[in-house]
Order: sequence, then C-alpha cells, then structure tokens
Amino acid sequence: MTQTHPADHALASAAPLDAVAFEAATLVDPPAPDPGVPPRAMPGARRLVDALVRQGLSVHVLGPRNGHDHAGLRAHLVAAGLDPGRVTVVAGDATLRRTATSRTLVVTRCPERAAGMAAAGHPTVTIEDRSAHQAVFAWLASRVGPFAAATALVAPLDGQAADSARARHLHLTKPPGSLGRIEDVCAQLAGISGEVPPPLPRPAATAVFAGDHGVHAQGVSPWPQEVTTQMVANFLAGGAAVNVLARQAGAEVVVVDVGMAGDVAPAAAPPGGPAASALLDRKVRRGTADLSTGPAMTVDEAQQALDTGAEVAALLVAGGARCLVTGDMGIANTTPSAALIASLTDRPATAVTGRGTGIDDVLLTRKTALVAAAAARARYQHGCEPVAILAEVGGLEHAALAGFVVGGAALQMPVVVDGVIAAASLLVASRLVPGVEHCVIAGHRSVEPGASAVLAELGLDPMLDLGLRLGEGTGALLAVPLVQAAARVLTDMATLDEVLAAP
Amino acid sequence: MTQTHPADHALASAAPLDAVAFEAATLVDPPAPDPGVPPRAMPGARRLVDALVRQGLSVHVLGPRNGHDHAGLRAHLVAAGLDPGRVTVVAGDATLRRTATSRTLVVTRCPERAAGMAAAGHPTVTIEDRSAHQAVFAWLASRVGPFAAATALVAPLDGQAADSARARHLHLTKPPGSLGRIEDVCAQLAGISGEVPPPLPRPAATAVFAGDHGVHAQGVSPWPQEVTTQMVANFLAGGAAVNVLARQAGAEVVVVDVGMAGDVAPAAAPPGGPAASALLDRKVRRGTADLSTGPAMTVDEAQQALDTGAEVAALLVAGGARCLVTGDMGIANTTPSAALIASLTDRPATAVTGRGTGIDDVLLTRKTALVAAAAARARYQHGCEPVAILAEVGGLEHAALAGFVVGGAALQMPVVVDGVIAAASLLVASRLVPGVEHCVIAGHRSVEPGASAVLAELGLDPMLDLGLRLGEGTGALLAVPLVQAAARVLTDMATLDEVLAAP
Repeated sequence: MTQTHPADHALASAAPLDAVAFEAATLVDPPAPDPGVPPRAMPGARRLVDALVRQGLSVHVLGPRNGHDHAGLRAHLVAAGLDPGRVTVVAGDATLRRTATSRTLVVTRCPERAAGMAAAGHPTVTIEDRSAHQAVFAWLASRVGPFAAATALVAPLDGQAADSARARHLHLTKPPGSLGRIEDVCAQLAGISGEVPPPLPRPAATAVFAGDHGVHAQGVSPWPQEVTTQMVANFLAGGAAVNVLARQAGAEVVVVDVGMAGDVAPAAAPPGGPAASALLDRKVRRGTADLSTGPAMTVDEAQQALDTGAEVAALLVAGGARCLVTGDMGIANTTPSAALIASLTDRPATAVTGRGTGIDDVLLTRKTALVAAAAARARYQHGCEPVAILAEVGGLEHAALAGFVVGGAALQMPVVVDGVIAAASLLVASRLVPGVEHCVIAGHRSVEPGASAVLAELGLDPMLDLGLRLGEGTGALLAVPLVQAAARVLTDMATLDEVLAAP
Repeated sequence: MTQTHPADHALASAAPLDAVAFEAATLVDPPAPDPGVPPRAMPGARRLVDALVRQGLSVHVLGPRNGHDHAGLRAHLVAAGLDPGRVTVVAGDATLRRTATSRTLVVTRCPERAAGMAAAGHPTVTIEDRSAHQAVFAWLASRVGPFAAATALVAPLDGQAADSARARHLHLTKPPGSLGRIEDVCAQLAGISGEVPPPLPRPAATAVFAGDHGVHAQGVSPWPQEVTTQMVANFLAGGAAVNVLARQAGAEVVVVDVGMAGDVAPAAAPPGGPAASALLDRKVRRGTADLSTGPAMTVDEAQQALDTGAEVAALLVAGGARCLVTGDMGIANTTPSAALIASLTDRPATAVTGRGTGIDDVLLTRKTALVAAAAARARYQHGCEPVAILAEVGGLEHAALAGFVVGGAALQMPVVVDGVIAAASLLVASRLVPGVEHCVIAGHRSVEPGASAVLAELGLDPMLDLGLRLGEGTGALLAVPLVQAAARVLTDMATLDEVLAAP
C-alpha cells in the first residue's frame, strides 16, 4: 500500500519546536531480567517517531537522569526496533541540557525530571497514564490547536506490524487466506496500533456531529429543519437507530452540537430506555449559510469545526474508547456532501447526487443542478484548496467529522466511517492529510452514489453492503463487531503447530 | 414471497394421528381483566395450527375441563387472530371425550388433565415450560423420529406478523426503508416467530457437524484426512476460528460427530483459553464410501443423519438457543457439496466446483470431472429424489445439516447458514421440505461458486460478502450480530409520534 504524507513542517514554526526528547521508558520497555528477551517498543512508538521526523523535528531518546551508558542505550533501542538512523541517543539530563535548545520538548514519566527540565527552560510533558502519542498530542493541541496537532502526528501505518500480523495468520489453524477481508482488517489494525496481535478495538465510541444547513431553504429535503434538533433530543433519550445499534455493539454515543440552528429542548423523556448519550455544546454558528448563493461558512468557522472534531476524538480516546465511529445528523446534509465530493473529485454532480432520505425525480433534478453550480463555483474560486472548498460548500458536521478522522488517526485508533456524509468528510480529511484514510475502515456502502465515488477515489472497500441510507453512524456501528472479530482471531486462535502435531 | 409446502399427510399414517386438541391456554392468552385489551395468540401458535392443518389433521381448541361456554371461547380465539375456519372449538373435556378418537393428541399445561385424558385413551403431552410447537415436536419426534416430526411442522412464515413488522418500521424515527436489508431481516424474524416485535435472537448456538469422506482417497484435498479429527479436538479446546467468532457473537458451540473416520483424542489441552465446545457422539459410520466409485452411504444412513440434525436443533432450542447457526468440519467436503449442488440444480460441474481450501488448476480439473461424473450418475439413477441423491453423492454432515435446518424451521427459529457445505445441505432440505428456506438467513457469500449457485436457486441474498472460504460456521457467526440488530431496532427505537411532535 503506497502512502503519502504532508511534510509541511508546520510545527517548527507554529509550536514552536525543533526537537522532541523522549525519556527512554516512554518509547521502549526497560531491559528484561532475562537478557534473552528482546525489549519491545511501546505500542505506536515507531509511528510517533516517524511522524515527528516527517515534520522535520529531531527526535532524541533520553537515558536515566544521571545516565552515561550511551552505547548500551543505543543497543537497547536497536533491539526494540527503533531505527537508530532516526533517533539520537542522549545519555542523561546533563547531556541534554548541553545540547538541546529551549525548543526541545521533553517527554517523561517522572514529575521530578519534568520539573528539573522545565527549570532549565525546556517545555515538558509528563505522560501519566497515557501513551506517548496521546501525551504529545495533548501538548501540541494546547499550543497549535487540536487539528494542527493531529495533522502533525498522522504517520503511515506500521508496515512491520502489518506484515507480522499477516505472517502470524499463516500459522493459525485454517487454510491460508480463508478468512478473506477479516485478515486484511486484522493487518490494518496491527498497522494502526503498531501492535501484533492488535489490541481489541473495544469499547467503541460514536460521535454524532449535528449541524444545520442554509441550503435547506432551497427545498432539497422533504423534512423540516427542526427535525435535526428533534432527532438530537431522540439521541439523548436513547430512542434513535444509532442508540439501538450502539447498544448492540457495546458502544458509547456522544452527540456534538457543532452547528444546529436550534437548541435541544431540556430533559426529553427517554421513550425506550435509559438515556444513552451525552451532549457536547460546540456550536460554531446556528447553521451554515445557503451554499447555493454564497459561502456556507467562513474559513475560520471551518477551522473551528475541524478543531472540534479532533478534540472530540481525543476526548473519547482519553475516556477509554479504542475504536472511533463517525456519526452525523443534519437535515439536508446530503446536499453539501454531494457538493464536496463533486468539488474535490471533479466528478459530475449527476454521478454523486442521490435521493437522500427519499426525494422524487423533480426534486432530485433540482438538487443535482444546485450541486453542479455550487461545485463549479467552489472549483473556480478555490481550485483544489480543501479548507476553502469545505467552507464554501460544506457543512459544520462535515468539517468536524474531517477533524475527527484526522484526530483518530493521530491517536493511532481505527476509525470506522459511516455513509455519504462521513465519506465526504473523509475525502476532505484525505485532501488535507493524504494517507489518513489508511487508518479508516469503511463500515458500509451507502445507497447514496457519492459514497461509492469516495470509496473508489480512496481505494476503500466497505465491510457491509446492506442498502442502508440512514446516516447517524448506523452503518458503521453494524460493522464494529466485524472489526472486533478481526482483532480477536489473531489473539485467540490456536496455531497449526499446537494443534496439528504429527501423531 | 410465494411459499410452497409438502402436504403428504405422512403423520396421519405414521404417528398415527388424526387430530390435535390444544388446551386454549397453550395457544392464546387468557382473557384480560380489561375487556378492551384483545387476547394475543401465543408466539408461533398460528404457524403451528397452519402446519397441522396442512398435514391433514383436525385441530381442536379445548376450553376449561368442565367448560361449556362454546361461543365465548370461539369469540376469544377470533379476537386473538386464530382462524375459526381452521380450528374446532370444544368447550370441555366431556365434549372432547364424546367426539374425539384415540388418535387425538391432547396438548395441555395441566398434569391432572393430562392424566385424565390419558386414562380416557388419548395420547397426551404437557407443554411444561416449552412452547406448544416445541411440545408437539417432542411428542411427534418420539413417535416418528425427529426429522419426520420436523418436516410435518414446517409452515409458511406468519405473513400477518411480517406485514405488521414492516408497518411498525414506518413509524420509527428514520426515513422509511432507510435501514435497507436490516428491515427485511426484521420482517423475516417476525414471520418466523409469529411475534411483533420479534424476540431477540439471542443467545445463538452453532452446531458443527463433523464427518469424513471416502472421496478423499481421490486426492481432492491437499489436507490429510486426520485433520478432521485434529480440528475437532481444536474446536473442543476452543482454539479454532469458529470458537473465536462464537465468543465474539456470544454464541455456544456444539460439535457433533456424525461420521468422522477417527475418534477425538481425549482431553486435548486448551491452547487459547477455556474449553468452548461440547462433543455429541452421533457417529453414523466412520466416513462415507468413495462417492466417485459408488454410493457414499445407504439411504438408511442418510435418514439417520437427517434425524441427528433435527434432534440437535431441538436440543439447542431446549437449552435456550434462540438463533441456530450451521457449522461443519470434514476434509474434502467441498467435493460432495459440489456433487449435491450439480445433481439437485442440474447445473454443470464447472459452474459449481471450486478450489475449496486452495487447490491448483490440475487438481481443480480432476475434482470437477469427478463431480460431473458423480452428479450424472446420481441424476441417472435417482432423478430428483433428494434423499437418494443425498445418499449417493453427499456427506454425513450434509445430511445432518439438512436435518438441522428443517428442525430449526419447525421450531420457529431463525437459522443462519454458513458457506458452501451449508448451502448444499440447505438445498437438500429445501428439496425435501419446499419453503424451509424462508426460515433461513444466508450469513455470507462464500468464495466457492457452488454457494452462489444455491443462493441464486433459492432466492437468498447473503448478509456479508467478505471473501471467506473457511467453513466451520465462521461466516454465519459474523452475521449473527447483524441479525440480532435487526430484531433490536423494532423493539428499542422510538416512534415518530413520540419524538417529532409538533412544537
């Protein structure tokens, strides 16, 4: 799988930062009592180092506070598979103080060490109970914003882990390749996490981003705009399809108001059981402007929603989620989806515009013409500049979902994407951070033609094809048990050596 | 959906039986304190009555022991949707004793009543904590064998329940039809169970039927025959793909030796966790004969395996399973599968023979020629007589799986079928009991061409298409969470009336 990546070195100027010094224990296990047991890199450490090097930063690995065994530490890193060509070994704090600048971020497990390095003028972060990449993400996010931080930390998949997963599959008690796509997903999960077998992607958490759309005034949907708010109340009460399928998948649901026109009425009574969702208020504005007559939002508003998406990904992961699921709610949001897809893939509007929740031929013709005009305008004015196009013809939930996908990828989490709204958002994310789609698992093939256009454009093959066109995250949630099964086979299955021993 | 059914009236002569008298409380709820609440038929009661009437039996509904309110009971049944044209109302025991013969089976909840009726010369069955159809099945099975009993009790789906499920879907908080195939499966589950919303098909139970094949001597598989036994030991130890996917789906695994050449070595140590399966010994013979040189088994042996399959379905349902999943193990079993499919669909061997666990072109050519010759012989000798063809070119696990599918359908359970071995077996079942496939959910589309041939022949559209070719029940188990989700949406979702109230 070929992978591209932006190397815009934005962090060097924005953070500002020119190096990261990791305490060795944040990247690699300590030496084992038995010298025959090789040390292991921490899950995701290789991908984190990879991302930072691609950002033009130097990466140091820091020994004990008063350490001096430079050669021993270097051999330990090599044994753990951390490329010695990409990291510089620094034996101890004194050496680091001599060589590093005030633009070197120190990552440590030890509060005393952090205090000492901070006193010496270095920015520091203690990782506490987080992974190194979660800690670095949090530090960067507080300096440059969640979306820029996430963008910097997206790295290609760990090919070594993915290959190792495929190799282990050959030893399991089954004919080689006989689990088909399940084996591909397993290798992908290993590549995302940097672990073999990959950790079980459970629990899953679904973020449902809700927004309204000025283009609703053009009559592109049979539903009144208030239904966005009413459905969000339904999500909070636990009675919608997304709640039911989340319960079936053992997943949490968080609703994020990123731009609803209205507000949710307080304390809707749960009709079908206990309340199943929390609401995060991140309203950027009360619905977008009408994209058929001018820009849907400003670039600043789009950036704010991108940040919200990446922030929510980090919140869910901090809360324990190990698989992220995209969800959306917004009456009329298939129209900006089609406009984004037409703009960013240069496909004709007729090929990417669908019936949404169910419109007739007359309305479809009108919607398609509107999409064609908006996409032509966006391309004329903005070429292929993704954020400008997003602001011109997108929705606030699309921007937030794009940020959510990039945030999930930066945090080395699998992101299961839903239907056409998620697909359009993923396309934006992929144009902003090429390669981010390698952390994505397409949950299902929506009936909407734009969804298939994006899947083809990004080379994604969905897990399910069941004729769904509901959104909310429903199709992705149906795929979650399959993704979890993919991890489980490598963890739990016996090997041929164990079972098919010669009699 | 058009449905056909055999009306061979075999029970009348075999059981022998000419009528069934149900105590009213076994078919319908008692009158509610509030006369405005209509009584409900017991789940599946309509389908049970339907099946018995189709077998040419009279069906009586029996009031209280010393009852006399003939008209009141009749009105109660009509209110519960039990067709008064198909059942005869009998007010009480004295009336029944006057009118019924010793060939009238009495079905009651009450042990005293059962004793009284038995003393009067009637066969009786008390339903205890079972449903009426489980109780009738058990009684019939003890008289005519499990497979014949199951055959008699397969009825068309409850169209009233399926329609009602579809109608309720229109009121849920989502655009009509937007859950695609999930809505179809939900209606099917309602039609199978006779309940709306359908009961949650959980827990699921997988029966893995294991057998060996004389045709293995022709070199149609790269694996030695001993692998069948070794893999069964792996199932019992919990280390195979079927165990892992069953755990993910919350399903039980039962392994049934219906014809392995070898025996399972005692007490294999679990390699990957606790033992996950029980073994049932129902060995009919030690592997089939070589189907390329003569009949694989006798018709009696095929019948015995059909009985085993139906018996196992009943055992699993009695143990609490509410969804049955087909599994299989048998080195070389894609060859008899292809031979059965070619024989029963009259398709050319080239169109239904595949690479199984992975054979090369030379071996595939040889296997295809062998399948073509066997299918031609079976058709020449047996026309379209399903049991004779099954015995001629099938396997013992195919026969058992066919019995399992019919048993599940008779017990009004959804049966999720796996790959090509299950498909070939389902085809046999459908030729024996036309319409049985309406109780079946195709779990996935196997890579094997024969599986797609059967799906097309029976008009089934599989839930998943993930390139699997492993068998054991793996593809079906991956589909189980989707089937459970289909039931859940109708139970748990809020309605539009509840949520989208006018402001």
